[in-house]
Amino acid sequence: MSDEPAPDTPNKMRARRLGVVTPDSAIVFMREDCHVCRSEGFDARAQVKLSHGARSVIATLYHVTSDLLRHDEAGLSDTAWRRLGLHGGEMISVSHPAPLTSFATVRAKVFGKPLGEAATRAVIEDIVARRYSDIHLAAFVTACSTKPFSADEMTALTSAMVETGDRLSWDQSPIVDKHCVGGLPGNRTTPIVVAIVTALGLIMPKTSSRAITSPAGTADAMETLAPVDLDLAAMRRVVEREGGCIVWGGAVQLSPADDVMIRISRALDIDAEGPLVASVLAKKIAAGASHLVLDVPVGPTAKIRTEAAAESLSSSLMHVSKTFGLTTRVVHTDGRQPVGRGIGPALEARDVVSVLHGDAKAPADLRAKAVTLAGVLLEMAGSAAPGGGVDLAEAVLSDGRAWSKFQHICEAQGGMREPPTAVHTRPIPAPRDGRVQAIDNRRLAMAAKLAGAPDAKAAGVELHVRLGDAVEAGTPLFTLHTETPGELDYAIDYVVSEPDIIALTAP
Amino acid sequence: MSDEPAPDTPNKMRARRLGVVTPDSAIVFMREDCHVCRSEGFDARAQVKLSHGARSVIATLYHVTSDLLRHDEAGLSDTAWRRLGLHGGEMISVSHPAPLTSFATVRAKVFGKPLGEAATRAVIEDIVARRYSDIHLAAFVTACSTKPFSADEMTALTSAMVETGDRLSWDQSPIVDKHCVGGLPGNRTTPIVVAIVTALGLIMPKTSSRAITSPAGTADAMETLAPVDLDLAAMRRVVEREGGCIVWGGAVQLSPADDVMIRISRALDIDAEGPLVASVLAKKIAAGASHLVLDVPVGPTAKIRTEAAAESLSSSLMHVSKTFGLTTRVVHTDGRQPVGRGIGPALEARDVVSVLHGDAKAPADLRAKAVTLAGVLLEMAGSAAPGGGVDLAEAVLSDGRAWSKFQHICEAQGGMREPPTAVHTRPIPAPRDGRVQAIDNRRLAMAAKLAGAPDAKAAGVELHVRLGDAVEAGTPLFTLHTETPGELDYAIDYVVSEPDIIALTAP
Repeated sequence: MSDEPAPDTPNKMRARRLGVVTPDSAIVFMREDCHVCRSEGFDARAQVKLSHGARSVIATLYHVTSDLLRHDEAGLSDTAWRRLGLHGGEMISVSHPAPLTSFATVRAKVFGKPLGEAATRAVIEDIVARRYSDIHLAAFVTACSTKPFSADEMTALTSAMVETGDRLSWDQSPIVDKHCVGGLPGNRTTPIVVAIVTALGLIMPKTSSRAITSPAGTADAMETLAPVDLDLAAMRRVVEREGGCIVWGGAVQLSPADDVMIRISRALDIDAEGPLVASVLAKKIAAGASHLVLDVPVGPTAKIRTEAAAESLSSSLMHVSKTFGLTTRVVHTDGRQPVGRGIGPALEARDVVSVLHGDAKAPADLRAKAVTLAGVLLEMAGSAAPGGGVDLAEAVLSDGRAWSKFQHICEAQGGMREPPTAVHTRPIPAPRDGRVQAIDNRRLAMAAKLAGAPDAKAAGVELHVRLGDAVEAGTPLFTLHTETPGELDYAIDYVVSEPDIIALTAP
Repeated sequence: MSDEPAPDTPNKMRARRLGVVTPDSAIVFMREDCHVCRSEGFDARAQVKLSHGARSVIATLYHVTSDLLRHDEAGLSDTAWRRLGLHGGEMISVSHPAPLTSFATVRAKVFGKPLGEAATRAVIEDIVARRYSDIHLAAFVTACSTKPFSADEMTALTSAMVETGDRLSWDQSPIVDKHCVGGLPGNRTTPIVVAIVTALGLIMPKTSSRAITSPAGTADAMETLAPVDLDLAAMRRVVEREGGCIVWGGAVQLSPADDVMIRISRALDIDAEGPLVASVLAKKIAAGASHLVLDVPVGPTAKIRTEAAAESLSSSLMHVSKTFGLTTRVVHTDGRQPVGRGIGPALEARDVVSVLHGDAKAPADLRAKAVTLAGVLLEMAGSAAPGGGVDLAEAVLSDGRAWSKFQHICEAQGGMREPPTAVHTRPIPAPRDGRVQAIDNRRLAMAAKLAGAPDAKAAGVELHVRLGDAVEAGTPLFTLHTETPGELDYAIDYVVSEPDIIALTAP
């Protein structure tokens, strides 16, 4: 094959998969002296449009000056390759993308103009089509965070996020759902809540996320107990048979703009109220929920740090829910320390099983919290009289019906299994006598991640103490679990360098 | 050599230059299953610190799943390779970067807290050290644009920008300088002003920028006439010999944070008053200027759209100038249409030469404006009596002294040359008889950029009409110039889709 392109295909290049992983954003590598870069005047870092058949993707172009590529080759990152549906050897075309006209809306927002409905929709459409570069996305997320969003703006953003993704619809009603605003390690109530309410006949088709920056998402923990990677048809079969499921939301594209924006918010560690409300509600509305309970943990190292912030967030969540006909109750919970003992996929799964199984040593806080949230849902959906939800939830948990239902759901999702156990463990002792005064959620989560969670399923942190506990010098405060000795060393280094992750009262 | 790393160098990788061009930002590619990614828990897209000896650079990590790299190799982009000063085969270490503590200041600014002096300095130091990713930079630029900066914030940002870069000092005094706040295509007065005032003995060591969001910066246009990429020593030699220069500011690191931020502002097409004041003045203060004239074009499609906005900007510029002991005069000019005929590096350079050369067909508006600005500088510096600056400037332009001086400056910078000519041109005719009622600077600039300017030096737009001109159907309003047929098609598509870039009176 000649190194020269066919003369009648000036913008055609042979696609080559480079095996470069660029989550969420597409990259293309081309020789800077190739015919397309020259004829189209593409600079390094230009945004270019790659097309193959009916599919196209906007990619960032990097010039290559070495022999890494031939002159007629376009080297694609895995994201670009996948979005174009390529298999190998195809010719793709490379062209200038259409101007990003929706960004005028972002620019106007930067200078103080509120987001309108149609304009917001155009922005979100472009984000979903991956037409925004990281720079554009960061400007949008920042502009949405600088001023309190008006209720209209939250509604506009929520609506745009719902409408630019898949929507699930269900024959039955009510459809109940549950969400935690996050920031609290170990807080794995979802599988327990699903088991309780479906055991009582409610419909709860739960899709959950994997961890992005936390040591485990619900999908990661659940995956150690049963398959969660179900497509929409399989998910429907499980819900029809058992009334509920706990699956990974990745198979359905509910509010896909949210996933893109969350990546930027996390990188910036900025989580403003307006975008947060839209992010939470859009996914639930798209999932077809009619009744929603929201867990908002409040604590100095949780995402929501003060009661005032929680109040403001709750009021916005309620207002926007109402606009979309979604019945929502917000429950403020204790976010001063992790919930349960395990932090990490398998460790959290073991907590879930021990609560459902009714073990004597099951974490009482996790059990109480799950029962509270399930109780709220039971009352909202009319399965329990007002004030009677908690007792009903407690009953179905105590008598084993929830445990039985959970096992059936796992079987329906593909078969229940045993969570893995870590090979290496290391208890971290209390340096002296004292009482537990504070637990830093963020740094404990960091220790679990350094131990390998969520990718190493068995890795994480097992917490042995709770606020107010009296400890003696040398008794373990928590235990690190890892799958490799390197990760154990790394996690130990971290917790040694941060001796006050669990702060004791002054000696 | 074994594919396994030596056990005592857990974070060492062999550096390999991949020949990937990533302007302004460093990238490193590593196998996702390499020992460093596994032991350090590096995700794809993580920011990592690459070190070699005393040098280090923060790079974005992309995982590689193919055989593009060996398990012990780190593939570096050219920027990363250069910043580490590598030659080939060196071992580098890869580690977690120090936390970006200064970003807390940006986060606080997003949520409404003003920028303080020390905190701003820390942000700018991190930006200059390239510790901010594009996402962080875009958030900072956006946060600085959402609310009017206070005078203290502008001073803090200006000061931080000055202090984190080089500073020039000159033996003589006064040192005059000139800047245009921009937004007006073609407005290439600088080379003419430098020629006039240096012909009269003033010292004007002019550093100019390349295009930000425009089809050409002064450095881009000047580069078609003479080398502009001079280092500091070369620039000093030119100024000592000729009293002035017109060079690209990139060779000296005057306010280097500004260059980083400008790249982001350009991508976002956002230019707010506060950052603009700091950007303009920091470079002038760092360049050692004592007297500065600022051209502020005002027009509905210029960067500054109203007299009120011009007044606000002028007052901020004067205030901050005074704080730094810089004598500044702001001249509001007509920004309703481009200045001169050419838009694009070579086309603008030709206008400059024709004015200096005294050609009968030289654009009168460009000549008049350059003479006005030169006149202000001559009066400010005491070379002309108050009110006598324009006449003196006019005289030195008419009698050929300015032209002679310009040629000498070009020779001193490395030799005068002829600007390139476009291969492809296409006149865009008036659709009907009428009178020119409005000219859209922004869309005309967009057409010039689509034609390839500023990277394609000969590309751009040649304007044939001015406001108020009577035209007949079919006579050309402007001509597109491009270096490639692809860009010509692309620019034609745009101007056809935007038929009122030059608006005629109603028929």
